[in-house]
Amino acid sequence: MISKAKISEIKKLAQKKFREESGLFIVEGTKSVTDLLLSQLVVEEVFATSHWLAAHPLPQSIRCAEVSPGELERMSCLTTPQEVLATVRIPHFDPNTIDDRDAVIALDGIRDPGNLGTIIRTADWFGFKQVVCSPDCVEFTNPKTIQATMGSFCRMRVFSTDLPDFLKEKNCSILGTFMNGEPIETVKFNRNDILVIGNESNGISRAVEALVSRRIHIPSFATSPTHAESLNASIAASVVMYQYRLRIQ
Amino acid sequence: MISKAKISEIKKLAQKKFREESGLFIVEGTKSVTDLLLSQLVVEEVFATSHWLAAHPLPQSIRCAEVSPGELERMSCLTTPQEVLATVRIPHFDPNTIDDRDAVIALDGIRDPGNLGTIIRTADWFGFKQVVCSPDCVEFTNPKTIQATMGSFCRMRVFSTDLPDFLKEKNCSILGTFMNGEPIETVKFNRNDILVIGNESNGISRAVEALVSRRIHIPSFATSPTHAESLNASIAASVVMYQYRLRIQ
Repeated sequence: MISKAKISEIKKLAQKKFREESGLFIVEGTKSVTDLLLSQLVVEEVFATSHWLAAHPLPQSIRCAEVSPGELERMSCLTTPQEVLATVRIPHFDPNTIDDRDAVIALDGIRDPGNLGTIIRTADWFGFKQVVCSPDCVEFTNPKTIQATMGSFCRMRVFSTDLPDFLKEKNCSILGTFMNGEPIETVKFNRNDILVIGNESNGISRAVEALVSRRIHIPSFATSPTHAESLNASIAASVVMYQYRLRIQ
Repeated sequence: MISKAKISEIKKLAQKKFREESGLFIVEGTKSVTDLLLSQLVVEEVFATSHWLAAHPLPQSIRCAEVSPGELERMSCLTTPQEVLATVRIPHFDPNTIDDRDAVIALDGIRDPGNLGTIIRTADWFGFKQVVCSPDCVEFTNPKTIQATMGSFCRMRVFSTDLPDFLKEKNCSILGTFMNGEPIETVKFNRNDILVIGNESNGISRAVEALVSRRIHIPSFATSPTHAESLNASIAASVVMYQYRLRIQ
């Protein structure tokens, strides 16, 4: 049993404003909550059905409330509610702790929550540990982003900082995708490259473009005069990350 | 001016049932409608604001109604309505007309409309012309799919047919992604390969797996013991399509 006020409080965490006020975000579903419990993130509370709790015993240190499927549905941000939902403290990673010896994925205005989540998931798959978001990116604590990461939000350090300021101080290669760049399959990558991915509609911003040291391009190979004008941002990011892993020096 | 009944009729095309009954689907936004007007698809009617029509003169052969932004909003399937919306006849491509000399992207149970749209957009970028969907794929006429293709729905022949029956008759290589396949960067592709992409949760179905002649895999290169368990289906499809283009014999 859970109060109406509590349900409404959790439901509100779908909105950025309430996440900022409370410092909490929502994680839903067995896969994401299981990954969460194995991570360093601070779990505030877990809400689950008796059925779920019987199958997934929680550590005693975790605050937990048994709720009905109907109650979970009313808290949920998803169209298909799950059997478990957790509220989690938003982690704040200090950009000064970025490891300059390792690669960074830098996102310049990624607005679509699904794209951000898919980029984090793909970065995790390809062994990246650090994603830097410009302040105009969608927050990674957006429920649709968390959902799209399929648990990878737990394993990625996601920083938010002014991108030009961050890049100005760096002494490594900064690669960005442009229509007129070098074909990516001939690029040699360095371990500590910064790989910049631009906004869905406008690409990389002028201020960031000025700091890019190497312009790269994903060739289309299309033979028709008319074809897709561009790739989805998460698709472009994935091809870049894959090529980085293949062609790192 | 447009009747309430007409608005409601168009709005209903967001649902599969009404698209099947009417044989129509919806296309929204300047980019998609512009691509549509350059394509072979049969436009039923265009609804646009006076502002849009002044900037985009239509051929006389196109039936067109001027509507207010409010009316468009009531017809729209999008959260951010556009200035133009078209209703279009659903094309039916006969699987017997598939060109066996050219590559095919075969989708085995892709359920997410955004994934299907992104795969069609990426296929168009990389010069593919033919996508074959199993009957349990989301329909490509779903408004979210059309939106995600960014106009590429106009340039792709999207077939729907029983996948095992289709594959059984083929005399070419059938490649599918599996966790235990050959690393994709060592695979040599043939022009008329069939590239199979599996369902978001369950991968390639048993019946299709039995017909795959070459099991391929996208390595993760991750060094940590825990990392993402899988890639998003549209990401996996994109890496496969990109490698096909790079490594075609």
